[in-house]
Formats: sequence, C-alpha cells, structure tokens
Amino acid sequence: MQKLRISPKEFKRRTDLVIDSMKERDLNAFIFWSSVSIFYLSGFAFIPTERPLCLILSKDGTKTIFGPRLELEHAQECLEIQDVKTYPDYPDTVHPMTRLGQLLKEMGVDSGKIGSDGAGYGSSQGYRGPQLAEVLPLAEIVVDPYLVEEMRMVKSEEEIALIKESCRWGNLAHRFLQNYSKPGSFENEISARASLEATLAMMNTLGPLYDPTTIGRAGASAGFRGQIGPNSALPHAMSINAMLKPGDVLVTGAGAGVFGYNSELERTMFVGEPDKEKTKFFNLMMQAQEIAFDNIRPGRKCSEVDAAVREFYEKNGLWDYWRHHTGHAIGLLGHEAPFFDIGDHTIMKPGMVFSVEPGLYVMGLGGFRHSDTVLVTETGMEMLTYYPRDLESMIC
Amino acid sequence: MQKLRISPKEFKRRTDLVIDSMKERDLNAFIFWSSVSIFYLSGFAFIPTERPLCLILSKDGTKTIFGPRLELEHAQECLEIQDVKTYPDYPDTVHPMTRLGQLLKEMGVDSGKIGSDGAGYGSSQGYRGPQLAEVLPLAEIVVDPYLVEEMRMVKSEEEIALIKESCRWGNLAHRFLQNYSKPGSFENEISARASLEATLAMMNTLGPLYDPTTIGRAGASAGFRGQIGPNSALPHAMSINAMLKPGDVLVTGAGAGVFGYNSELERTMFVGEPDKEKTKFFNLMMQAQEIAFDNIRPGRKCSEVDAAVREFYEKNGLWDYWRHHTGHAIGLLGHEAPFFDIGDHTIMKPGMVFSVEPGLYVMGLGGFRHSDTVLVTETGMEMLTYYPRDLESMIC
Repeated sequence: MQKLRISPKEFKRRTDLVIDSMKERDLNAFIFWSSVSIFYLSGFAFIPTERPLCLILSKDGTKTIFGPRLELEHAQECLEIQDVKTYPDYPDTVHPMTRLGQLLKEMGVDSGKIGSDGAGYGSSQGYRGPQLAEVLPLAEIVVDPYLVEEMRMVKSEEEIALIKESCRWGNLAHRFLQNYSKPGSFENEISARASLEATLAMMNTLGPLYDPTTIGRAGASAGFRGQIGPNSALPHAMSINAMLKPGDVLVTGAGAGVFGYNSELERTMFVGEPDKEKTKFFNLMMQAQEIAFDNIRPGRKCSEVDAAVREFYEKNGLWDYWRHHTGHAIGLLGHEAPFFDIGDHTIMKPGMVFSVEPGLYVMGLGGFRHSDTVLVTETGMEMLTYYPRDLESMIC
Repeated sequence: MQKLRISPKEFKRRTDLVIDSMKERDLNAFIFWSSVSIFYLSGFAFIPTERPLCLILSKDGTKTIFGPRLELEHAQECLEIQDVKTYPDYPDTVHPMTRLGQLLKEMGVDSGKIGSDGAGYGSSQGYRGPQLAEVLPLAEIVVDPYLVEEMRMVKSEEEIALIKESCRWGNLAHRFLQNYSKPGSFENEISARASLEATLAMMNTLGPLYDPTTIGRAGASAGFRGQIGPNSALPHAMSINAMLKPGDVLVTGAGAGVFGYNSELERTMFVGEPDKEKTKFFNLMMQAQEIAFDNIRPGRKCSEVDAAVREFYEKNGLWDYWRHHTGHAIGLLGHEAPFFDIGDHTIMKPGMVFSVEPGLYVMGLGGFRHSDTVLVTETGMEMLTYYPRDLESMIC
C-alpha cells in the first residue's frame, strides 16, 4: 500500500540538488523561510503566522527547523526533519531572530557565506523584526529566492502522479458542479455541495492511501468564483452568490489538493442552449485553446505558445475580448513560473505542467474560457484533465 | 436595508488618516501593494497572483488602481476607486514595473518623496521584477509597511458590528460541528457538513443584506484541524481526517467572514464524559482564561495579560503544558498585532479586538484550549463570542 505522498528518496534527491548548489557557491548553510520551499524539501506543512519559522539546511544535509515552541512536537513528527529548535513565542522578551542568531552560532554557521531565500522573515500577520544580516554580523548573507522555485519547474514522476490524482478528483467535483447547476440555484450552494461531495468521495475512495498532509487546498473543490451570467466576462471575478438563470454563461473552476499538488480544470458552460452569438465565441475560444495545444512541445519557448494564440486573436479581430496570457505552470501553487506569456522565453522541458486557458471576454454577454492542465512530454504534450470540452457536453 | 459592509463615510475617514500622514511626511503619493491594505482603504477585493497590482493614493485623495488588464472592469466596479490603469499581463515584453514608472511620471508623482508599504511587488507565484526605486530614479521612496496595520488595530463601530455578525455565524457553525461530533464520524466530513450548513443558513438568512465581497474566508466554517484525541495536544496540528472515538479530547475552531472581518471561537470538547485527569486540565484552562479576561482593560499593556496568565502557570507548576502566548488581535486577518505576549507592550485601547486563548497541552492525553473573541471597552472588555464554555456543555 503506497500512500499518495512524496517518497523519502525524492526528498533526498531534492535536498542533494540544494546541497550541490550550496557547494558550488561555498555556502555554509541555507536558510529557507518560504513555507512552500520547506514543504518541498521536507514535507513539513504548518500554519504560517506572526511567528518566524525556518528550515536550516546544513552542508551535510541535516535539516533543522527553527520555530515557535508550539511547533516542536508537530515538527518532530516529520521524518525528514532531524532536529527542531524552538523559541517561546513572538515577540517575547528576546526577539526570535536574536535567538536564531545564537542558534546559528552554536551550530557553527554564523560566519562565511550563508544562503537564504529571503533577507529575513516576512509576514502580514503583525510580525516585525530584524533581517538575517543584523543577527549574523560575521556572515555574508547570499539571498537567493529562486533556487527551489526553479527546481519546482520540472516535475518528477512522483509529482506528476500526484497531479494526475488531483485531476481525477477535480473531475468529479466538476461533474457534481455541472449536475447541480440548474436555474434557480445559487452559486455558493452549488459550489459548496459539489465540493463537499467530491471531497468525501475522494477521501472515502482512497481511504488509507489518502495522506492529509498538504499546503493549500485539502480535498476537492469546484465553483464559479462569481463568473455567472454577464459577470462571467470578468476573468478574476469574486463570488457574488448569484442565482443561475436560463441563458447564463458560466465559467467554472475545479481541482483538488493531493499532498499539496494541484490541477486546474475550468469550463465554459451554458444554462440552456446557447444562442448563435455565444456559440460563436465558444467555438473561437476552443480554436484558440487548440492552437495553444499544437504549440506545446519540448525545446520551444513558452512565449511561442502565447504568440501563436495572440496571432489568432489578431487574425480574427478579437483583441477587444483579450484579457490575459495563455497559461501558467502549476504544482504546489496554483500559479507558478514559467508562464505562457509573450515575454517569458523559458524553454519548455519534459515534466513541466501548465494550465492552457486562453479566454474571450465579451462585456454584457459573458466569458469564454476552458482551462486544461497539460504535461510537456518528450515529443509534445499530454492532457492530464479529461473532462469533456465540446459544446454539447457543456449545457446544463 | 443596510448591507453588511463598510460605508463610504468610513472609507473616507480611513483615507483621510492616510492623507494626514502623507502631509506630515511631505509624501507626494502613497503606493499600497498589500491586498489587505487595498481592501481596507477601498473595499476592492481581488485574487493576488504573479501580476503586480497596487493602489496609488494621491495627495488629493484620488485612488488609482494599477494592475493587469484582466482586472480593469472588475476594479471599475468598485465605487471607492476613481481610476484604473492597466498593463497587458506579466511578464509581457515591457515589465509591468516599467509601465508603473511611466504611469507615475504621467501622473506627476515620479519625484520628491513617495510613500510605499513595500520596496516593490512581492509574490510567491513566480513573479520577479525590479523594486520601486529602480523605476522611479528621481524619487525618494519612503518605505512604511506599518501605516495601515496600525490604523487597523483599533476597530471602528462599523468594524465591530461586522465582527459581531461574524461571531453569530461562527456560533452556528460550531453548534453544527458539535451536533455531528459522534464516535465513528470522520473529521473532514463533520467539518465540511457543519461549514456547508452554517454557510447556507448565513446566506439564506441574510439574503440581500449579505455582501459577498471579502478577502479570506467566505461564509462560515468550523473544524478541528487535526486536534482530535492525543493529536489535540499539538496546538497547530493539521487535518489528519481522524475518526472520532469515545474518550477523545477535541479542540475546535469556528468563525465566519463578513466583508472580510473574522472572529475566533474555539472550544475543548469531549467524546463522552471526560475522566478525572481531563477534567482537571479543563478546569485549569478555564481558570487561565478567566485570569486573562480579568486583566483586559484599556490603559493596561498587552504584555500584562500574558504575564498574569504565565504567573498562573508558574504557581500551578504547568510549564510543561505551556505552548504559546495568550492571544492576538483579529480583524481582516485571523492573526493581527498587537499580541497578548509578554514582549508586546502595546497599550490596550477601546475598540481593540482580541482572541483570548491560553492553552494546556498534555502529550498523550490531549489539548485544552478555549478561544473567545473579546472587545476592549471604555471600562474593561466585552465578550463577543457567546458559545457555552462550561464542561457540561462540551460533551458530545
């Protein structure tokens, strides 16, 4: 029985890559403040608060969590963490950053070059404090926020398997969402019921295979985020708890969190048969998405995908309805670099996972956007989401 | 009919306070990157992504949103925003920050002193870019991250009314949670059902009074976050989707988002009658919370509340079970400054709203923590949460 989670072997591979980079740059330790990077390197998920918490990676691969007292036993449960050092709380009478400076001195890593993914701890939740350089006066702090972000761009086989699992339960949540999308129903109720039922189905189906450890979304969810009727023309609308009415265009979104990994499934649906105008824009959106698919293959630039889609907008006089680039990478975060954007010249590699979602937004009429999650393969791409895309399947 | 939201008058009062501070410091404009501050000053809620978005406040009080094309019509809907300027997308062929520099030049605010709540845009979602100083070479950037955070510490009557509304629906969610907490039930199902039903009751009760505009949590929710059985001894556990068993100690949490405002209601519950040992720790926890309540009054320091609670731990030999400070402020964020912490000497003022939640955590047995949301009044404090606290009411 294999739990749906990242293996110790994979955590070691990731850690070794960081250590290689530390050696290249002669870093005595690397300090990670990003909760995403800490999870990526150790599988330790926690609730970020006003209390500073970091992962200290030593040259020999030892991982030490420095954090508040309340996380001691919780962090000790994590098999990838070798040591946990704590301070009482924030702000306390001795600032936690002062204590971190003392700890690093005791560990013998308070001089020479020390890597860090940030200048210090940052939090919107009322935290204030000195930066790392202030509590490590003898060290040279090498700030590199992008080391793990770049490692995350190409997904491993284990990560791809988790994203595929996410697609399954996002698919179910979306099916419930479509089933419940009837005239007279309200946005939040449809979404909450679909999300609840898909989550329970997911957890009850997987049973002990399901590992609840996660950052971000737990379980499956589906919703509209306010994209109902004319409001669907706002690509990033927020919930308005609208009542569905005959003739409404709906833009949906569904996904699931599996050991922190996400997928993205979005569909343009119609309450009742769409009229000619809506059908026209739906078909144009489908064509734009097909063009994007055709341009995804290893060795090409991300920008080429977006450029090809933009050429389609240009040729068909669709600029009035353009609102955003073609897609983004996805994994532990819902949006990640690189982007299918005319300005992002990152070379596509096998193992990269993207959303593909060019949209057309017509004020007064509605929004038209499918989003599918795709994997760059050795020869082209593989569609990971598999919900129907055709117009007939989109009618509620 | 008055919607549950912040009034234009209150937004103006907030804006005027910022303008006063700008005048004092001779700032030609103030640029806000924090999505919480943007919401606080304008009521504009949006989904932060890799795409930079900021609010530019001019000396005359004009509010301009600078953001990606996809937010244009969405931001224009916000009555507190006078102008919206956009760039195509991120990263694009011209970096959005370069365009921001150009815009500020056109607006005549590219020299002299310019306030900002950050050195530039920050996002974990794949964003990279120059800081504000790099695109405004003629200006002196005065970075002040704390201006709005400090304004948020004392809540207005309107804010208090929204927090009280949040308490009502958190109370209902918690009641459903307790009703469904039966042996053999699973954590996530109990939590999801209670949250769904409370959210629907909230929205259907309030009808048109409910304004779905929010940052953070929408609707009501209640859960355990993994604090079930012995795992309840981890103050910041994460969901483990445990099955409830007779004898389990449960530590709960409930709340609701009302126009972005939150409250916190947490209870220690028991599956069946608690034994002597559990009863002892429950009673000690209740005493610690009462001591905190007794020490909350305007004019005293936040640290005094925590010091009084710590004295109780000291006197009763409870340090082994201490894990965290007594509480934190709450409002638009779940945790805000100031803190009921021995190191936070902020003077309590009428209008401040805090959680009060000293806890006892006994490895192998369970966690014991109630959290109530309280308002500092002219003479002492008012309890805003009103769910029963006594042991008899805590048995499922």
